[in-house]
Amino acid sequence: MDLLGISVRWPIVGAPMAGGPSTPTLTAAVSRAGGLGFLAGGYLTAEALAQQIAEVETLGVSSFGVNLFVPGNPEVDEGALDTYLDSLRPEAERFGVEVTPKWDDDHFSEKLELLIGHPPSMVSFTFGCPPSDVVARLQDAGTRVVITVTTPAEASMATQVGADAVCAQGIEAGGHQANFVDDTAPDAGWGLLALVTAIRHETHLPVIAAGGVMTGAAVAAVVRAGAVAAQLGTALLRCPESGASEMYKAALADPRFTWTSTTRAFSGRRARGLVNDFMRAHPDAPSAYPHINNATRAMRQAALARRDPHATNLWAGQGFALARDRPAAEIIAAIGAEFDAVTT
Amino acid sequence: MDLLGISVRWPIVGAPMAGGPSTPTLTAAVSRAGGLGFLAGGYLTAEALAQQIAEVETLGVSSFGVNLFVPGNPEVDEGALDTYLDSLRPEAERFGVEVTPKWDDDHFSEKLELLIGHPPSMVSFTFGCPPSDVVARLQDAGTRVVITVTTPAEASMATQVGADAVCAQGIEAGGHQANFVDDTAPDAGWGLLALVTAIRHETHLPVIAAGGVMTGAAVAAVVRAGAVAAQLGTALLRCPESGASEMYKAALADPRFTWTSTTRAFSGRRARGLVNDFMRAHPDAPSAYPHINNATRAMRQAALARRDPHATNLWAGQGFALARDRPAAEIIAAIGAEFDAVTT
Repeated sequence: MDLLGISVRWPIVGAPMAGGPSTPTLTAAVSRAGGLGFLAGGYLTAEALAQQIAEVETLGVSSFGVNLFVPGNPEVDEGALDTYLDSLRPEAERFGVEVTPKWDDDHFSEKLELLIGHPPSMVSFTFGCPPSDVVARLQDAGTRVVITVTTPAEASMATQVGADAVCAQGIEAGGHQANFVDDTAPDAGWGLLALVTAIRHETHLPVIAAGGVMTGAAVAAVVRAGAVAAQLGTALLRCPESGASEMYKAALADPRFTWTSTTRAFSGRRARGLVNDFMRAHPDAPSAYPHINNATRAMRQAALARRDPHATNLWAGQGFALARDRPAAEIIAAIGAEFDAVTT
Repeated sequence: MDLLGISVRWPIVGAPMAGGPSTPTLTAAVSRAGGLGFLAGGYLTAEALAQQIAEVETLGVSSFGVNLFVPGNPEVDEGALDTYLDSLRPEAERFGVEVTPKWDDDHFSEKLELLIGHPPSMVSFTFGCPPSDVVARLQDAGTRVVITVTTPAEASMATQVGADAVCAQGIEAGGHQANFVDDTAPDAGWGLLALVTAIRHETHLPVIAAGGVMTGAAVAAVVRAGAVAAQLGTALLRCPESGASEMYKAALADPRFTWTSTTRAFSGRRARGLVNDFMRAHPDAPSAYPHINNATRAMRQAALARRDPHATNLWAGQGFALARDRPAAEIIAAIGAEFDAVTT
């Protein structure tokens, strides 16, 4: 079938999962299995991203996407940020690390130029709406441009800058919520089905539906609601091609982790993960991304090194209990077969 | 088609909306139009509920459901409750009313006996899981028993007491969230599609899907995800048969109300409504239902009398912008026609 001009067997996109889980092997495996794999450009330098793109291409895969994080506002409530970071210092000391906040632009411009010069099939943006000239330059280079949105208002903005499609992210999704209009609005979190419905009434852009989709029946459900595809991340998190750490993969299958919740505690931006001690200890945190994300990085890495699942982020969508430790190709094939069974 | 042994034209249930919106006329109109209408037994005396049932039957409708609220725990954090109620007194004084908390059992036993003696097609329960003998007595009387759940764990409990089906309520839903296992769990709110998927893997019970469903495409989507029907409330809130006040109906169509959020501010139990001044002024409230609901009732009624939409609850689901001021029969027929169009 056709997905925005790209040939796929099933309407399944492999979600970009920045910070480790997405790997060139996983991306290639998803595309080869009949979906559209994605590299996660977030947190990478342009050189590292170029290397990952080369690796996917070396694996003989030419249809895949790349996701970029759009830089946000450096200005935050410094007082609230300082107070919050002070509350983290006892935990940081336990790990022997510093807590240093820093804004950065995630090498956005360099990675953008890389992609314009070496265009992948699709580029999706998260945490912001790029200006129309950026969208047009990518399109002129032959790339489909997708903007991740969490509200109908954000979908309108994506339409106005000329995007080819939106990725509608529901509150069910694992990892960071992509809100860019107002991350602090009360209960900004739309459920996926209501969001897809509302966006379909707001814009004529195709919609890729993301958040909590774990099965072929759920893929078929979002397609019936009007989406052109579903984007699955957590469903692939435990597979051998995923770069998630063994500790993280084990936590996803550990019956002691029964809940997910959204939190700003790790990064200053709302994100969904398995509820652990750190999240419980810090129920509130200011909106300050990537300042807090950079401040907690050393602690999170130290926790990872000590295999302590309670002091690092364990991003996971609401459906994580259905994630399986199987090769990515098997997971995509099983979900695809179920999609076929319910749609024919 | 068949809905738990009840003949309907479309897999559409009219949600019970307690406190006014559900009326015998609305209930009858939904059933006659091809769905299954529901009376909202919550907040009514047994006599008032008997009267409403008689009115539906007088309208020649025999297939409909009745919803009951299961009484909760009288014990709450009294200190937190007092502190919260003190914070409401300035607003109450402005309206010249008292703020008096009270637990009650919502006449549960009397209404249950009424229904066992005069069994409707379906009885659904909200805010709790009735014991298996209550479920069995209703079933013996010829009624299908549905328990409203918000998590897979609650669905398991419903299975254990012998319910015929669960109503899976997503975080998108307007009005009160039905959580009964742990209303204070962090971010208990499952998105509807992920919840239906998880419950289908947890139990073999049929699932009625509730929360943010506004269109025939969305009804078809939840059916594809494995639900036997969708339950729609907000979609019917503005219709002439709805008992919602004119002020409330006007607010649903007022572009100044752009957001919904969940709040405990009005009732002590998390519920979704249009964000108004009262919700903004009281971002936090303790878990104490129905104590706070009873305490704020006089103020909410006074605000209604003054047509002040900012001091009363305006329950609405996330998809409220798609609610239409059309007769219920037209709304059901339009949603049904869209369902037919996407499923055939």
